[in-house]
Amino acid sequence: MKNTFGESVCVTLFGESHGNAIGAILDGMAPGIRVDANFIAHQMQLRRSVSSLSTARKEIDEVEILSGIRDGITTGTPIAFMIRNQDTHSKDYEALETVARPGHADYTAYCKYHGFSDTRGGGHFSGRITAGLVAAGAVAITALSEIGIHIGTHIAKCAGICDRNFEDYQKDITALSEMPFAVLDTNKAEKMRAEIESAKADGDSVGGILETVVIGLPAGVGEPWFDTLESVLAHGMFSVPAVKGVEFGKGFAFSDMRGSEANDAYASNGEAVFTTTNHNGGILGGISNGMPILFRTAIKPTPSIYKKQNTVDFVKKENTELVIHGRHDPAIVHRARVVVDSMTALILCDMLALRYGTDFLKNGGNTK
Amino acid sequence: MKNTFGESVCVTLFGESHGNAIGAILDGMAPGIRVDANFIAHQMQLRRSVSSLSTARKEIDEVEILSGIRDGITTGTPIAFMIRNQDTHSKDYEALETVARPGHADYTAYCKYHGFSDTRGGGHFSGRITAGLVAAGAVAITALSEIGIHIGTHIAKCAGICDRNFEDYQKDITALSEMPFAVLDTNKAEKMRAEIESAKADGDSVGGILETVVIGLPAGVGEPWFDTLESVLAHGMFSVPAVKGVEFGKGFAFSDMRGSEANDAYASNGEAVFTTTNHNGGILGGISNGMPILFRTAIKPTPSIYKKQNTVDFVKKENTELVIHGRHDPAIVHRARVVVDSMTALILCDMLALRYGTDFLKNGGNTK
Amino acid sequence: MKNTFGESVCVTLFGESHGNAIGAILDGMAPGIRVDANFIAHQMQLRRSVSSLSTARKEIDEVEILSGIRDGITTGTPIAFMIRNQDTHSKDYEALETVARPGHADYTAYCKYHGFSDTRGGGHFSGRITAGLVAAGAVAITALSEIGIHIGTHIAKCAGICDRNFEDYQKDITALSEMPFAVLDTNKAEKMRAEIESAKADGDSVGGILETVVIGLPAGVGEPWFDTLESVLAHGMFSVPAVKGVEFGKGFAFSDMRGSEANDAYASNGEAVFTTTNHNGGILGGISNGMPILFRTAIKPTPSIYKKQNTVDFVKKENTELVIHGRHDPAIVHRARVVVDSMTALILCDMLALRYGTDFLKNGGNTK
Amino acid sequence: MKNTFGESVCVTLFGESHGNAIGAILDGMAPGIRVDANFIAHQMQLRRSVSSLSTARKEIDEVEILSGIRDGITTGTPIAFMIRNQDTHSKDYEALETVARPGHADYTAYCKYHGFSDTRGGGHFSGRITAGLVAAGAVAITALSEIGIHIGTHIAKCAGICDRNFEDYQKDITALSEMPFAVLDTNKAEKMRAEIESAKADGDSVGGILETVVIGLPAGVGEPWFDTLESVLAHGMFSVPAVKGVEFGKGFAFSDMRGSEANDAYASNGEAVFTTTNHNGGILGGISNGMPILFRTAIKPTPSIYKKQNTVDFVKKENTELVIHGRHDPAIVHRARVVVDSMTALILCDMLALRYGTDFLKNGGNTK
Repeated sequence: MKNTFGESVCVTLFGESHGNAIGAILDGMAPGIRVDANFIAHQMQLRRSVSSLSTARKEIDEVEILSGIRDGITTGTPIAFMIRNQDTHSKDYEALETVARPGHADYTAYCKYHGFSDTRGGGHFSGRITAGLVAAGAVAITALSEIGIHIGTHIAKCAGICDRNFEDYQKDITALSEMPFAVLDTNKAEKMRAEIESAKADGDSVGGILETVVIGLPAGVGEPWFDTLESVLAHGMFSVPAVKGVEFGKGFAFSDMRGSEANDAYASNGEAVFTTTNHNGGILGGISNGMPILFRTAIKPTPSIYKKQNTVDFVKKENTELVIHGRHDPAIVHRARVVVDSMTALILCDMLALRYGTDFLKNGGNTK
Repeated sequence: MKNTFGESVCVTLFGESHGNAIGAILDGMAPGIRVDANFIAHQMQLRRSVSSLSTARKEIDEVEILSGIRDGITTGTPIAFMIRNQDTHSKDYEALETVARPGHADYTAYCKYHGFSDTRGGGHFSGRITAGLVAAGAVAITALSEIGIHIGTHIAKCAGICDRNFEDYQKDITALSEMPFAVLDTNKAEKMRAEIESAKADGDSVGGILETVVIGLPAGVGEPWFDTLESVLAHGMFSVPAVKGVEFGKGFAFSDMRGSEANDAYASNGEAVFTTTNHNGGILGGISNGMPILFRTAIKPTPSIYKKQNTVDFVKKENTELVIHGRHDPAIVHRARVVVDSMTALILCDMLALRYGTDFLKNGGNTK
Repeated sequence: MKNTFGESVCVTLFGESHGNAIGAILDGMAPGIRVDANFIAHQMQLRRSVSSLSTARKEIDEVEILSGIRDGITTGTPIAFMIRNQDTHSKDYEALETVARPGHADYTAYCKYHGFSDTRGGGHFSGRITAGLVAAGAVAITALSEIGIHIGTHIAKCAGICDRNFEDYQKDITALSEMPFAVLDTNKAEKMRAEIESAKADGDSVGGILETVVIGLPAGVGEPWFDTLESVLAHGMFSVPAVKGVEFGKGFAFSDMRGSEANDAYASNGEAVFTTTNHNGGILGGISNGMPILFRTAIKPTPSIYKKQNTVDFVKKENTELVIHGRHDPAIVHRARVVVDSMTALILCDMLALRYGTDFLKNGGNTK
Repeated sequence: MKNTFGESVCVTLFGESHGNAIGAILDGMAPGIRVDANFIAHQMQLRRSVSSLSTARKEIDEVEILSGIRDGITTGTPIAFMIRNQDTHSKDYEALETVARPGHADYTAYCKYHGFSDTRGGGHFSGRITAGLVAAGAVAITALSEIGIHIGTHIAKCAGICDRNFEDYQKDITALSEMPFAVLDTNKAEKMRAEIESAKADGDSVGGILETVVIGLPAGVGEPWFDTLESVLAHGMFSVPAVKGVEFGKGFAFSDMRGSEANDAYASNGEAVFTTTNHNGGILGGISNGMPILFRTAIKPTPSIYKKQNTVDFVKKENTELVIHGRHDPAIVHRARVVVDSMTALILCDMLALRYGTDFLKNGGNTK
């Protein structure tokens, strides 16, 4: 299976940036989930442009639901989302077809598809394909929310500027859900945006780190081998374009810690079991322990920059220089945020359905 | 599928630390691959103890091949590896059964398996289960090696001490393949070992970072969505016990870079296409570009420490203190190395077989 | 995975009979395959009505390709097919929503989806959903044809009338490919049609048996356990609505044979190895032996009949009588034919890609 | 995935007839299921010889459980079963290595594995490999039985002799569970055995038909597309050696029926919904309807016969004659019975776990 992910709840993506349409099939979602078209539109909007920071391409990104939802409620059968492509300036790309844009998939796509892939606008590799994922993810986020599982992601770092840490998860998640530029400390947000503008002025781009928290996930989700909760989440995150690193809890910082610092002590109030720290990000032995799930994803700088770059024509095998035209974001970290949330929600729906059955999301999240 | 990983070449793990036997089934490996029992034994040895640094448990770890290999050559049908458990001091664990060891899977296993899992010695969550993975991986490493694909992993960091970077990949890989404590700079190795001994003396433990390189992988391997090369490798790595982070190329350091620094310029000598830097770790758009694959995995400190820890009895929901006895490693990063190599080799065999057919590994790696 | 089938080449179906649209995603098809829109339309037409025999619903069944094909050639990325629903007389179904039509999925859908599924016109269970399968199958049939693999299915039996057996496979396949009512002996076709008309006049329906042959499939395709060629073909066939039996070669007739009759003797002309009979339908040990693949599928009579039937309101749990209105086929065996061909082609593309790599279909079918 | 079947509860088979050992891994089974070693031994015995009718090979078939069961109760982690091979007369097979036995997999295995597969005694294609499946199936049968789901299979036809139909399912299932030669009418059993003896005396063999019933399966299990209950059961059945046909309910006989005869009328007693006939074998739209599941599998005659047969040396491509020596069954239909039961039980455990969660089998089968 290539463009399909998940075992019980799964999503299939299709489309190319400059083709007729893009979209997604969400299959296995429990029947009886109320779907709010406004929330889907809200999420689609978060994925899109933020004033001057983002791509000038004006997509309406209107999501048409072709199947699987009747009178605003999931039927239990596949939900097909379609988004027509519009406002495609394919001519901007035609010259590029055999000249590799550094940092992009042009050359690797050529090696894989032998020159048949639709390369215009990144084709099937375009970040635009995430629109289908976000539409499907909106349903998953809604379904999880109904059973008390909430997801929030902020820009922990961008262009070298760090946001504050999470403080009150529930409150922070609620605040983030409305922010087009998801930074908890507004002063830091201003600084990040200034850095992005500065990079843009230089014809350059910046990267960043997203930090995600999930609250409300019951203990006991994940498998000991291969389908650990970390494995499946990382699998999903690394298929989000530009993600180059994933860490859970202290992640790479564990390498400077001793076991006595790294271990999370357990405690109980007589009813619940919890840990007094959460260095392991809510996952032990690949399985959720009931604490908040915490992970961070590294986003590389947008590869499309306006500076002249050395590259090759990979058909002629000739060295050449390239100046990229067209519309490109100087940063994508703020847009990737909602994609990370969506991917996370889809994965958790899948793992919960595998664990507790296909009706779990409909049945109020009863784990008994 | 739970304890099985891979689509065309896949591995299934079974066993508990103190049960009758552990092992692995390697399925889908091409027929006609010569398997060297000595090389399997060599890899098993690397996974085991390093003098005073590692667990005192004396396992012979003799691998019996039950099927799938005839006269030292793969038949193409499932290869079953079995390793008997011996020298198990189960009594060391009995007291622990309902007291959660911090940093371990005891509590999450209880939540998942309702108290029925075999918790002695970590049971199915024990690092010991990786022995089967290493046996299967030895076949995969051999098969890849025959077609010019080589894998090497060193301890890039341990207890705060950094190794030197890779210099000559082929030479470094060859050197690492013989080292029980895989550090490229022997001075740094001494310092790391001293730090590990120091932590041990304190009843404590340390973590580290492994860095892996793969050379010889053809361009064009990986999928654009969901089964990106990064996704599948990360999926595998995060199922190795104690791994809490995975990054490719510059990984998290991308967050401080600009696009003009991060992009790898292409060049050609008229025949091959290559990049003049390799910040992306040989993967673009989720697909190999023919450059060396580079990734790093963060290993948390061994959770089994001898210091007194606060924890709970999760059945009684009572707070308590715990002092762990038994035999435990003050570091596992050097032992995890061969597990990372094995997992990598198994994944690459799978992805190559999916791309080029089930006989690819036998046919000399012809990608045409 | 629910509505997705295949491992390397796979198809995902979506849609309900009276929803906005139905369709399919075909993923993993090799790049560089020429796709003829006329052939797709031809196959869609075969799936539709035959004069007075079939449903009066006038669907144009215009297939829009949303992605994956550029300038008439596959790109290697997912091919999305969408067919808008039109001319839906949903009111014919409204009364039925809680009254089970005997032989249909109404009640089982209710048990599975708790009353949320879109039941109008059979919803996601409708034979109409096969239109997406046929569109995807047309690409698969084309791809196989290019490498010399051809598929043909005839109505071996309908309403008790038997067609003649295959005589010249290649010639018969060619003839069948143009027939809306695929019967090799035209006299028998007339008799079958008369029986169907007779059943229709009685407000009743008839069933039948389809027989399929595949020529040109190389020896060595299939797995010994679980993914035998028979297993995967049967899996696909039994998901075609109304199929209730599948047999390979002599199938159920083997129960009256002795081994000395049942075994197919081998012979060789010094170059090829073949069998002098083909009682095993080209499959031994689950693997193709190079002979024609032969299988038969039993199709039950259309459950929608106009006679009064005893049934229940499954919500009220009350006995009731039902008279079905609306437009229904007195036979579907002739329409199921192209669905069986399509499913077969999709499965063979998948198994060949798994065996010989994802570019096999593009590379002229070289099995070396 | 090749030798692995199932999604949530799955089984992996390994081994060759004359290798060191054969076995199975059963993964995903709920924790807390009591496993009776005597019942496993009983099922193993049923799979083995019946007096003079069956193979003279004297295997003790002692099943060693390597993992996944502690104190007779499933732990929830993989259960590994190993059965040592003994009493192998490999010399009987050596001459055969390049001479294809008609009806066997020798030639197809050669095409697939290029001569590297272990062909002795059929190797990985041997019916002996089903021993692992039967061991795993014994656990599945036990687990289902605890929640009121029972499976029974009888020899509906053998050598042209038909058994009586099922009359009282529960009673018949109980009786069959103890019978080495599972025929409901003892007179018919005698006649079948006489026919088998007669074929044996002729150096020949016979085939048959098995009929299986499952009672107690809740309504709502199965998927509309691709993983219909029929699809998954047929997939499993066709991987049992020698199965060449599968039909559900009336199966192929539907081709002579009209819709008014074929449809099962619904009725209700105010509480339950049921059908007054069961021509559809308990499955509509691919989903169980709460009625008994009924299906039949066609078993071809044992291909190993003692009569001289025409065949080829497939390496030399020379015509030759073959007389098979060694120990072979004149019929396998009575031995295949327990394999069919086991496969059915494993599939139902999987589909129930997918539908209702991984703890369903432990939780008393609560479908709410």
